[in-house]
Amino acid sequence: MSSSSSSSGSVEAPEHEAQLTERRLRRLCSHLTPTAPPPRGADRLEMLACARAARLEVDTARLSEYMRGKHRGIQEKVYEYFNSRPDLQTPLEISKDEHRELCMRQLLGLVREAGIRPFQYVLEDPEKYLAIVEAAGSVDISLGIKMGVQYSLWGGSVINLGTKRHRDKYFDKIDSLEYPGCFAMTELHHGSNVQGLQTTATFDPITDQFVIDTPNDGAIKWWIGNAAVHGKFATVFAKLLLPTHDARGLADMGVHAFIVLIRDMETHETLPGIEIHDCGHKVGLNGVDNGALRFRSVRIPRENLLNRFGDVSRDGKYTSSLPTINKRFAATLGELVGGRVVLAYTSVGILKIAVAIATRYSLLRQQFGPPKKPEVSILDYQSQQHKLMPMLASSYAFHFATLYLVEKYSEMKKSHDDQLVGDVHSLSAGLKAYVTSYTAKSISICREACGGHGYAAVNRFGSLRNDHDIFQTFEGDNTVLLQQVAGDLLKQYKEKFQGGTLTVTWNYLRESMNTYLSQPNPVTARWESEEHLRDPKFQLDAFRYRTSRLLQSVAVRLQKHTKTLGSFGAWNRCLNHLLTLAESHIESVILAKFIEAVQRCPDASVRAVLKLACDLYALDRIWNDIGTYRNVDYVAPNKAKAIHKLADYLSFQVRNVAGELVDAFDLPDHVIRAPIAMKSEAYSQYTQYVGF
Amino acid sequence: MSSSSSSSGSVEAPEHEAQLTERRLRRLCSHLTPTAPPPRGADRLEMLACARAARLEVDTARLSEYMRGKHRGIQEKVYEYFNSRPDLQTPLEISKDEHRELCMRQLLGLVREAGIRPFQYVLEDPEKYLAIVEAAGSVDISLGIKMGVQYSLWGGSVINLGTKRHRDKYFDKIDSLEYPGCFAMTELHHGSNVQGLQTTATFDPITDQFVIDTPNDGAIKWWIGNAAVHGKFATVFAKLLLPTHDARGLADMGVHAFIVLIRDMETHETLPGIEIHDCGHKVGLNGVDNGALRFRSVRIPRENLLNRFGDVSRDGKYTSSLPTINKRFAATLGELVGGRVVLAYTSVGILKIAVAIATRYSLLRQQFGPPKKPEVSILDYQSQQHKLMPMLASSYAFHFATLYLVEKYSEMKKSHDDQLVGDVHSLSAGLKAYVTSYTAKSISICREACGGHGYAAVNRFGSLRNDHDIFQTFEGDNTVLLQQVAGDLLKQYKEKFQGGTLTVTWNYLRESMNTYLSQPNPVTARWESEEHLRDPKFQLDAFRYRTSRLLQSVAVRLQKHTKTLGSFGAWNRCLNHLLTLAESHIESVILAKFIEAVQRCPDASVRAVLKLACDLYALDRIWNDIGTYRNVDYVAPNKAKAIHKLADYLSFQVRNVAGELVDAFDLPDHVIRAPIAMKSEAYSQYTQYVGF
Repeated sequence: MSSSSSSSGSVEAPEHEAQLTERRLRRLCSHLTPTAPPPRGADRLEMLACARAARLEVDTARLSEYMRGKHRGIQEKVYEYFNSRPDLQTPLEISKDEHRELCMRQLLGLVREAGIRPFQYVLEDPEKYLAIVEAAGSVDISLGIKMGVQYSLWGGSVINLGTKRHRDKYFDKIDSLEYPGCFAMTELHHGSNVQGLQTTATFDPITDQFVIDTPNDGAIKWWIGNAAVHGKFATVFAKLLLPTHDARGLADMGVHAFIVLIRDMETHETLPGIEIHDCGHKVGLNGVDNGALRFRSVRIPRENLLNRFGDVSRDGKYTSSLPTINKRFAATLGELVGGRVVLAYTSVGILKIAVAIATRYSLLRQQFGPPKKPEVSILDYQSQQHKLMPMLASSYAFHFATLYLVEKYSEMKKSHDDQLVGDVHSLSAGLKAYVTSYTAKSISICREACGGHGYAAVNRFGSLRNDHDIFQTFEGDNTVLLQQVAGDLLKQYKEKFQGGTLTVTWNYLRESMNTYLSQPNPVTARWESEEHLRDPKFQLDAFRYRTSRLLQSVAVRLQKHTKTLGSFGAWNRCLNHLLTLAESHIESVILAKFIEAVQRCPDASVRAVLKLACDLYALDRIWNDIGTYRNVDYVAPNKAKAIHKLADYLSFQVRNVAGELVDAFDLPDHVIRAPIAMKSEAYSQYTQYVGF
Repeated sequence: MSSSSSSSGSVEAPEHEAQLTERRLRRLCSHLTPTAPPPRGADRLEMLACARAARLEVDTARLSEYMRGKHRGIQEKVYEYFNSRPDLQTPLEISKDEHRELCMRQLLGLVREAGIRPFQYVLEDPEKYLAIVEAAGSVDISLGIKMGVQYSLWGGSVINLGTKRHRDKYFDKIDSLEYPGCFAMTELHHGSNVQGLQTTATFDPITDQFVIDTPNDGAIKWWIGNAAVHGKFATVFAKLLLPTHDARGLADMGVHAFIVLIRDMETHETLPGIEIHDCGHKVGLNGVDNGALRFRSVRIPRENLLNRFGDVSRDGKYTSSLPTINKRFAATLGELVGGRVVLAYTSVGILKIAVAIATRYSLLRQQFGPPKKPEVSILDYQSQQHKLMPMLASSYAFHFATLYLVEKYSEMKKSHDDQLVGDVHSLSAGLKAYVTSYTAKSISICREACGGHGYAAVNRFGSLRNDHDIFQTFEGDNTVLLQQVAGDLLKQYKEKFQGGTLTVTWNYLRESMNTYLSQPNPVTARWESEEHLRDPKFQLDAFRYRTSRLLQSVAVRLQKHTKTLGSFGAWNRCLNHLLTLAESHIESVILAKFIEAVQRCPDASVRAVLKLACDLYALDRIWNDIGTYRNVDYVAPNKAKAIHKLADYLSFQVRNVAGELVDAFDLPDHVIRAPIAMKSEAYSQYTQYVGF
């Protein structure tokens, strides 16, 4: 570790170190290109920059310590339990039915043998709950999701949408897995548009029951996790219909949630009036048993209505503290935001595993080289750095952003502060959408970057990709979630101009909108020094300028088109623009959180390496959207070129500490598992696996 | 079909049709956004453009007829055979071992029962061979690849690298599958760098044999298709070592190919000295049995050397018509170019299936809509059009480009013209890399675009993606192949400036390089009319300008860096630039072939719809790289904006004929197979599949 690191977080080379610098530079360059003569012709700036990189020495343990969440202890307990039970490890090849049974045994083992009871933490300590889900997911993603279905979705709906009577009756048995359950929201014809659900729950005042019905094939509950095999109960979302005393006959009170017993407690037979089919083999997550349910006049007692936001009295009267169907619906869905937090957080964990495998293998693998010299590591190729190093930097960026989300979510669960609820809703939607899309693409890039050996199932990219793929869709389709973020931004935008207050996360818009409304500065648009480009202020300003510009312009376009196309048509006409706006905003939030994490870091050498990753994250993103910046002359051509050059160069610098950055994820070998990514003797672990 | 279509390929609305135009426009717009009032406020240009779109009526049969290859007949024979044999269809869930056996039975059935003998066509009619492989691949991609291993790789190496004695001895039995074989090139440590192979074949003049050896673990032959279970023979690539009569002892003559019997003809036992292990479960293609082979002093007769490019006499003398190791090596690999042609061609077929499923489902699926109106098709959303319509246009573009490649390849196999060989080598490398990367990404986008139902295995995106994934790696890693294209372009570039001739494909560089070397025209840089942007000349010029610019600038950079870094280091320093150059060039070739196909089309209405797809392909690509064009002021900001707007608008126009464009692929339901993409009653086919 360098002792001369400055406390500002950037590591500088004092003048008197020039000779040392040049020696280090030579060593560094010879590592990259063994035939290179000493680069005496290289210009001064590049030499200094290169030398700075050479001096970055990473104390993996300290970096790891800084990254580590509060709940590492319980994660290690999960790892240890599964390490001690090889019979519970998921083999590479397993049939769907066996996988489902194994996954249930894994969950039962964790809860009943290892004594890890996640359900209490859903309420008391969401951060701890998330840590358990992530650790379970690293054993088998199906296990993480099965756990989420039981405790976040089925259990969460009972606790969050029900009242004391439901908690008293169900909590302990959900906790112990005596009551495995389902979350029956999605229908064959309705996934994203939950208000369009068609299943009905009609109150029968004579028997004091609700009657659950599937009115048509499109209303069959579909993709319901835990339904095909293990579930005993389901939280069924249905339109509550109440008899009226007028000509209408029935009044539609909107979508509500009901607890329905679907299988006999003793025999596990499907109950009369209920038809369950297996949704069959999926692209991934085959350890989770998704089923389809049809209801034919299934009667449940009135108290099975989860009545926190709306209740029906014995005489069929509806009461609610919330005035409209839309408000009740929003409150109901609002309670389910935890699922998005879980997915964003877990997706980062999966990204780290994929990046770790690809990076370690790229350091190990050698192919081609200068004439008559040894072959070089494939991570020494600029193209491989370009594929993997911004991804490695992004996994750090997402790590801090999702930690922030988890903290805010925890706070929200305690305080129920309205502004915080809005913030967490939008932030969880945005991060879930952005991170899961990024991870999905990245796993494919990692596979391809590892060539043929990346295609061996044992090296994991296949199952990671297939299992993770649906993270982009469930708990809110990413395209739909980004629209919610855009909608929220527009709301904030209007409030700004109506003099209202902005919520915390969006606060930056006030300032950057003012900057935006003035013209780009033709002088700073030309600044291209490394110091300027690595200044967090420049980076954040650039990100936020883009968001502000997109927001302002889409607001104008929406207003214009609404006149001719109506609000739905106008929204659709601007849809790509709105999605870009939402992504831009989320990128701004991620960068801001990363910069904060760098600046907060007490250890200078750790701070220096985080700063490097942060700079790469920022400049790579700016370069990816350089067209936008150029179009409005926010950056001049010379600056665009400098950004490109520096982004490539930072990738090269990160490459030099890539092994350490990956080690600092602190993923034990039994979590990584891929032979090509083992810390030692990777090739021979691979040949042994095959049988040599 | 409209009878007023002009013969120029673009369909124009005469002045006097203004009223009709407006009526059609209203109908069209109401289709997109059911609440829209008549768009009286819309500007004139947009109205006319919109009206033109409304008039496109597609005669699917004629379009299909124009698209159809010469060998549809034999493809239908393949389909019919498998339709008549449901026992040979691959189930969704099947173990690796069962899948391998089934795949072998499928191949045996096709060859021995259906009487389709692909091997003869490898020689006589490569286009017909490709048509068979594509049809087989649509039954199960594993079958297409298993067929390719037997006939292109094992069979192809015997025919193309051997001489008459090998053909006489092996042809019939390879053809009949009596001799199933392997192509043992790749080693554990060497995939892309084939010249780095370490397996040795040492000539023993006493016994007149070669002795095959695996000198270390890194030299174990790895990923060898047909090796784990079915292969009897292998073409083994090894360094030919000849005893010398001086102190050196052995002379390394470079990599040669040898036929090695690996299993007993009767008992199928692995022969002594050979160790074979199963490479195990893969991400996809589990119907193909990949194995790893280690050789310990395995002796083969001298005549098993495939001696077309180099031979060893009884007394151990080496003879060759080619003067150097490098030339012999290039000639050997040159014969294997057919594999890339197969993959590029098959990849387009897979892309069509994925696009067809995603498009049909997006037309069927309805979700959300204007208040109190019916929900709209998700393909009516701009975001969904943005995901899928450029992809649909690209599948048309790739269709024509790969047809062209296949024709050139066929010509080459007949003429052996040197210039054609060079052209086909570079074109097949470039198209294989570009198309397979595009298809791999697109399958993931299609899955995500189909939401939850896209995640059902029965809807196919999982297996298509997993099976196709490795197309990016085998027969040449895409990153390596693109470098070959870039290298070829640089060679052509040097030749141009040395007054040499350019090969046919690259000929455009001469002209566009001249254009490039003059400055961008500030007047045309501002032109933004739809007519101009849809002019093929503007589109091609833009594509080629970019290629020329990238070529010129990388040549300068390479020259500069070579002085300090050496040629290997300089190449690496410019690697991302070189890859962008290669992609840009391939995109230019694809566009040129698409434009030719549009212009060649004799039917005006078919031509109009192809022109629409072609314009979308071109403008979408230009917009994707708008930063590059803006950076050099090739397009001014107003033009960039017009390109963006028009690309979105063309996506909308293509959406209106998307069903017909997909139907014109002429893929029967038993090839598409996904219930959500069936031509009628898709939802009920899906519910029936699940058991309702």
